[in-house]
Amino acid sequence: MQVYLDNAATTRCSDRAKELLLRYMTEEYGNPSSLHRMGKEAEDAVREAAKKIAKTIKAEEKEILFTSGGTESNNLALFGGAFANMRAGKHIITTSIEHASVSAPVEFLAKQGFLVTYLSVDTCGRISIEELKKALRPDTILVSIMMVNNEIGTLQPVEEAAAVIKANNPDTLFHVDAIQAYGKYRIYPRRMGIDLMSVSGHKVHAPKGTGFLYIRDKAKIKPVLYGGGQQRGMRSGTENVPGIVALGEAAAESYEDFESKAAHMRAQRERLIEGITAVPGASVNGARQDGAAPHIVSVSIEGVRAEVMLHALEEKGVFVSAGSACSSNKPAVSRTLKSIGLRPELLDATVRFSLCAHTTCEEIDYAVEVLRETAPRLQKYTSK
Amino acid sequence: MQVYLDNAATTRCSDRAKELLLRYMTEEYGNPSSLHRMGKEAEDAVREAAKKIAKTIKAEEKEILFTSGGTESNNLALFGGAFANMRAGKHIITTSIEHASVSAPVEFLAKQGFLVTYLSVDTCGRISIEELKKALRPDTILVSIMMVNNEIGTLQPVEEAAAVIKANNPDTLFHVDAIQAYGKYRIYPRRMGIDLMSVSGHKVHAPKGTGFLYIRDKAKIKPVLYGGGQQRGMRSGTENVPGIVALGEAAAESYEDFESKAAHMRAQRERLIEGITAVPGASVNGARQDGAAPHIVSVSIEGVRAEVMLHALEEKGVFVSAGSACSSNKPAVSRTLKSIGLRPELLDATVRFSLCAHTTCEEIDYAVEVLRETAPRLQKYTSK
Repeated sequence: MQVYLDNAATTRCSDRAKELLLRYMTEEYGNPSSLHRMGKEAEDAVREAAKKIAKTIKAEEKEILFTSGGTESNNLALFGGAFANMRAGKHIITTSIEHASVSAPVEFLAKQGFLVTYLSVDTCGRISIEELKKALRPDTILVSIMMVNNEIGTLQPVEEAAAVIKANNPDTLFHVDAIQAYGKYRIYPRRMGIDLMSVSGHKVHAPKGTGFLYIRDKAKIKPVLYGGGQQRGMRSGTENVPGIVALGEAAAESYEDFESKAAHMRAQRERLIEGITAVPGASVNGARQDGAAPHIVSVSIEGVRAEVMLHALEEKGVFVSAGSACSSNKPAVSRTLKSIGLRPELLDATVRFSLCAHTTCEEIDYAVEVLRETAPRLQKYTSK
Repeated sequence: MQVYLDNAATTRCSDRAKELLLRYMTEEYGNPSSLHRMGKEAEDAVREAAKKIAKTIKAEEKEILFTSGGTESNNLALFGGAFANMRAGKHIITTSIEHASVSAPVEFLAKQGFLVTYLSVDTCGRISIEELKKALRPDTILVSIMMVNNEIGTLQPVEEAAAVIKANNPDTLFHVDAIQAYGKYRIYPRRMGIDLMSVSGHKVHAPKGTGFLYIRDKAKIKPVLYGGGQQRGMRSGTENVPGIVALGEAAAESYEDFESKAAHMRAQRERLIEGITAVPGASVNGARQDGAAPHIVSVSIEGVRAEVMLHALEEKGVFVSAGSACSSNKPAVSRTLKSIGLRPELLDATVRFSLCAHTTCEEIDYAVEVLRETAPRLQKYTSK
């Protein structure tokens, strides 16, 4: 049996997204900038995809900017937001558990003279609204908080954060990295006070190389890529029409029967946690129940190195990640796990299971069975 | 009959590229950063694609950096090259006929305090090596010259330019925008003295949203996107595995039976030019024969606005561009056409035909026939 439980790393492209992608690659393959009918059709297809996506977050079509993925969306939000507003101030607030595609641009900005405050998190990985309130200053131009942590799944109180930020200064830009949250929660940026929101396609069954940044109408940001002036000058480069169309379809698909899918994932997550809890030496990290996303389970297993566990599971057909898979094989210690105060000996003994809406009970049960069988065997080797 | 002669804007994705793309989207869909077998397979596929591409330009696998397309490749070369070497100087040389994805980043750099020299071109669109020689200074850190112009097809003396640049200072980075040249010429960057070379996938029958930047081993550039550290830290973001694999295949395909394909395109181009020359009031812009790329024909037709001509041709199933299609519908006057000294009344009366290796004699003959029939009819309206 093959059980793919690494959906927070990447997902299988959906069949509906794939069919559309194919059509726009080999039949309606025009360049949206071409003035003839094939160009017009491509342009319309891009607009249609933006509309579909906008509908899922109650936004306007013009607020959707297509990018090459989550990393570009986050970079654009951070660099674009900081450089466009630096005259108003140079203070940025973020958290200690952001994904590298946020923390690395922030570090770059710090080197350019921006001042950065990093919010701490509690043992569940949650920020404190009080700490955020204290961190806000008159010159705070940008706050970036991820909605769902990619390693442990913790959900941040984004709406409360927005209220505090906007009460301090309505002009402060609020960016939310929603890469692990989109498709798992209903997110309405305008209502929630979010100005910029990053989404990656390949985390929601769209093709790799696609994503978008929600940019609230009138939010001021600068481009990162310059050229032909596509997408109202905000993101030059020929639009990836097939990818964009597929992303639109996958986005719409994610929010069809949404409540039942979310409940299904949540039930599978609970089933997995229940099974894991019975494994000796295993503990689940991060928040429980509604405090965490429905698809991520971070598990530390005493006495078993993550990589060893990962390969042992893989031998039985179960695919998981060591920490997060987004850091290019780097065996660096996870900032997130350190930030929640995980015992040092567990930092390197933590694996991530991540589900999708198609994950079945049988798959969960099989993964648990394999883990139950594997963990004690590996722990025995270690203790020798 | 439908005749797509807008291949310089974008091409149809090849069937071989498409098949591979499909496989990596729905079967081997792992994230290269995942440590398990599916991740490893994805990582291997990316490496294999880099090898295939490297082979077409006699480069090494590690010299190929995958991007989201030509615009990102050009931005990375310009920004990355300028910012990494600004301690050595702040002088940049480019030409007056670059694509916007080069000229816009250069303008951005000029605003940041870089000094820019723009080389002029002759009536064929060709730079002068003498002028380049005079423009080079001790503090010139970067020279960016496109190999084939996207609007008129003129081929630049890239190898001679490299020799002059490197004789002045071997540390000056030489960037070549080869977006319209790759797949049409054999290009060997190392032998030719090129340090950075941009290529776009969708111009060579690969999917949109793909491209690469050749970065000569040891050439010093800085990233544009920061994050998980993928591609040796030079381009963060989950690799677009299906797109990359498809790009590798399309690149290899482009250079199979290369001489015969290039000769075929050249013959079609001559056939088209011959046909056009017989149309009253029509003239072909740019260099002839070996001075120009085999796939681009820029035609000015007296007394007929480009957009009117484009739509008239489209009505008969012939798809061409007004100027270049890369500038997001902007009806701005072409800098290239101005730079070659085209008569003002023709600036807005110029269309571009662009071929690919699959363009047939029948298609060319049909396009010529339509043009012959259409031009006098439209000219009559204009003169009323």
